[in-house]
Amino acid sequence: MRQSELFTKTRRETPADEVSKNAKLLVRGGFIAKEMAGVYSFLPLGLRVLSKIIGIVRREMDSIGGREVFLSALQEKEIWKKTDRWDDEKVDIWFKTKLRIGGELGLAFTHEEPLTRLMKEHIRSFRDLPAFLYQFQTKFRNETRAKSGILRTREFLMKDLYSFCRTKEEHEAFYDRVKETYRRIFKAVGLGDRTYLTFASGGSFSKYSHEFQTETEAGEDVIHLCEKCLIAVNDEIIKEQKVCPNCGSAALVKKNAVEVGNIFSLGTRFSEAFALLFLDEGGKRQPVIMGSYGIGPARVMGTVVETSSDERGIIWPASIAPFSLHLISVGGRDKNVSARADELYKKLSSKGVEVLYDDRDASAGEKFADADLLGIPLRVVAGKEAVEKGRFEIKDRKSGKVSFKAETELMKL
Amino acid sequence: MRQSELFTKTRRETPADEVSKNAKLLVRGGFIAKEMAGVYSFLPLGLRVLSKIIGIVRREMDSIGGREVFLSALQEKEIWKKTDRWDDEKVDIWFKTKLRIGGELGLAFTHEEPLTRLMKEHIRSFRDLPAFLYQFQTKFRNETRAKSGILRTREFLMKDLYSFCRTKEEHEAFYDRVKETYRRIFKAVGLGDRTYLTFASGGSFSKYSHEFQTETEAGEDVIHLCEKCLIAVNDEIIKEQKVCPNCGSAALVKKNAVEVGNIFSLGTRFSEAFALLFLDEGGKRQPVIMGSYGIGPARVMGTVVETSSDERGIIWPASIAPFSLHLISVGGRDKNVSARADELYKKLSSKGVEVLYDDRDASAGEKFADADLLGIPLRVVAGKEAVEKGRFEIKDRKSGKVSFKAETELMKL
Repeated sequence: MRQSELFTKTRRETPADEVSKNAKLLVRGGFIAKEMAGVYSFLPLGLRVLSKIIGIVRREMDSIGGREVFLSALQEKEIWKKTDRWDDEKVDIWFKTKLRIGGELGLAFTHEEPLTRLMKEHIRSFRDLPAFLYQFQTKFRNETRAKSGILRTREFLMKDLYSFCRTKEEHEAFYDRVKETYRRIFKAVGLGDRTYLTFASGGSFSKYSHEFQTETEAGEDVIHLCEKCLIAVNDEIIKEQKVCPNCGSAALVKKNAVEVGNIFSLGTRFSEAFALLFLDEGGKRQPVIMGSYGIGPARVMGTVVETSSDERGIIWPASIAPFSLHLISVGGRDKNVSARADELYKKLSSKGVEVLYDDRDASAGEKFADADLLGIPLRVVAGKEAVEKGRFEIKDRKSGKVSFKAETELMKL
Repeated sequence: MRQSELFTKTRRETPADEVSKNAKLLVRGGFIAKEMAGVYSFLPLGLRVLSKIIGIVRREMDSIGGREVFLSALQEKEIWKKTDRWDDEKVDIWFKTKLRIGGELGLAFTHEEPLTRLMKEHIRSFRDLPAFLYQFQTKFRNETRAKSGILRTREFLMKDLYSFCRTKEEHEAFYDRVKETYRRIFKAVGLGDRTYLTFASGGSFSKYSHEFQTETEAGEDVIHLCEKCLIAVNDEIIKEQKVCPNCGSAALVKKNAVEVGNIFSLGTRFSEAFALLFLDEGGKRQPVIMGSYGIGPARVMGTVVETSSDERGIIWPASIAPFSLHLISVGGRDKNVSARADELYKKLSSKGVEVLYDDRDASAGEKFADADLLGIPLRVVAGKEAVEKGRFEIKDRKSGKVSFKAETELMKL
């Protein structure tokens, strides 16, 4: 994409109303725009990052047999009464609204209730199970705090997966499979080396649930990490369990962290409330055993910014960068330089390389500052040397390493 | 996808609470599920159709220079006060809600206001224009009527495109370009031969706006069609203009129709309210000239069902069908047949053909009835003949034409 045709502008100054690093950098880069406290819109660069994260998560969900659905945000009171999650005293993050024709509705903060009811139409016998459903859907949560940029917002996209199994064993095998899948996802988006499986409270069906916590100063959560096993317990669990759940070591280190994912065994809580039963092989009706598994793609995006940036801007991992290569023409009004840059842009694009091409009428300094802020992994500079000596300067955004390459070498990157 | 692994089930009986053909067939086929009146969820088959429609629209939006964004659903009162569209007496389809920390919010029924405000950050001079932004975003409309299935819902995905131009001429050229683009889109999704450009009221900036209306008995709108020019005027315009806007003929035919798209010239209504100004080439501040252009992908899907089905079920156009080929194994428990069908399924899939494979333990009659209901364009039957004579029966869902082909011929389809 030609940067002259990307309508967004970067900002020099840090937005005065943002305290979090992720929002400061993402707003300055034109990735997101603040609509109000805790509510952000995604601009083209930000949506490209978000879409890449979604793509990675979707592939992994499909690979474990997930079937994608898209449920509604509007929710009717009756189904949430069944599980006693309608009253504001029970769930204090509802946004509620009213139908003109009469009646109160809620905006979904999660989807166990509607999905369990929906499955009653489709599950009859053991042959219909197991079933794994997921969606990318906007959740609404009436949060009181909203200072962490896109780490905690009142409206956000969430990938939620739900499992429906016949037996505890079948459920546990899938639960473990999701654990591994989540590890792959966090590795793929560039958070692998600081994201830890974290033991959390389990509710009535199982002793523990699990969170995936990414270590960062920006995190609102506290985890207690066993640096040997790379497993943590959350702040709630530490009161009962003061040692590493794996090796028993008591040398746990306190860290700030962001919960980037969580997995829960729901047992039969929802299936019993909705009478979601199946006929087992012996002809007996049994409640379905459920699990739920969440990842917030925008929170992942914000967490990457918190953990991968420097004083000049963002450093995107290649897998989720808005573009893979930032081509910058720095010839001023020299037409030979811009023609050479145009040519390279066309060649790279036709090879399928995702190029952001800074063809703007701006100073080299301004372009370099913007490139650092935007954080595309590779910066390729087309200047006088490109025309005169056929050499392009290449800079790796992460390492800062500079090299020079001819076009033929560039095409092999 | 193996049908045994698709968790949804078809229904024999027509849902008692649906009056529209689209909802009856889509619910029976397991494409959608009703959450409440006017609110539907999308199940895997339905989401596949919806995603294909979105894909077609997205490609066309990109081809005319559209930049994709994703704005928030939650809206703050202040910006809608600026255009006098906050009060329920002015706009009677708002869903409103409250922040726990205090303050009233709305759920966006359209996005002119937040987008115009957002563009103030990015538009300064004539060099920043024109700009074309679009999104696929959920809109909320507090409708009183909700009997038309997914043709009119209280929550629905919408593609909305907004244009920002310097001059009336630039705006009009883009407006005409969108007209042509919309024609291509409706043709691509299979509605081309019964979708008409329809003249509608224009507001203060231009005499007309335009709708794209698809002729169908199910339509809630009435259009007056010139059968010579294939141009229509809507029910509002007919009072002033009793002739065809193109040829002047008064022989207009009254038809029921669904509005599948609309395009509006917004003029400077929003840019003046928000002081969205640009510095023109002469150094003078001018308000930006805007347009908005909508298509509802789910409404398009519902309209296709209304116009392309028979007494046995849906007939999807190939471009938006959930799968291109429905492979049906009808050997009962004959293992030779199921092995042969398995083999063909694998070969077709590895060739990139999107196959729904009915490998279920069910009768041939049940499978055929389901195939007709689901409406995948080509049905391929693997039975005893496939094993004994190497022939597969192929049936075209639309024409009903049956032919027999060997595997080598099938692979060329």
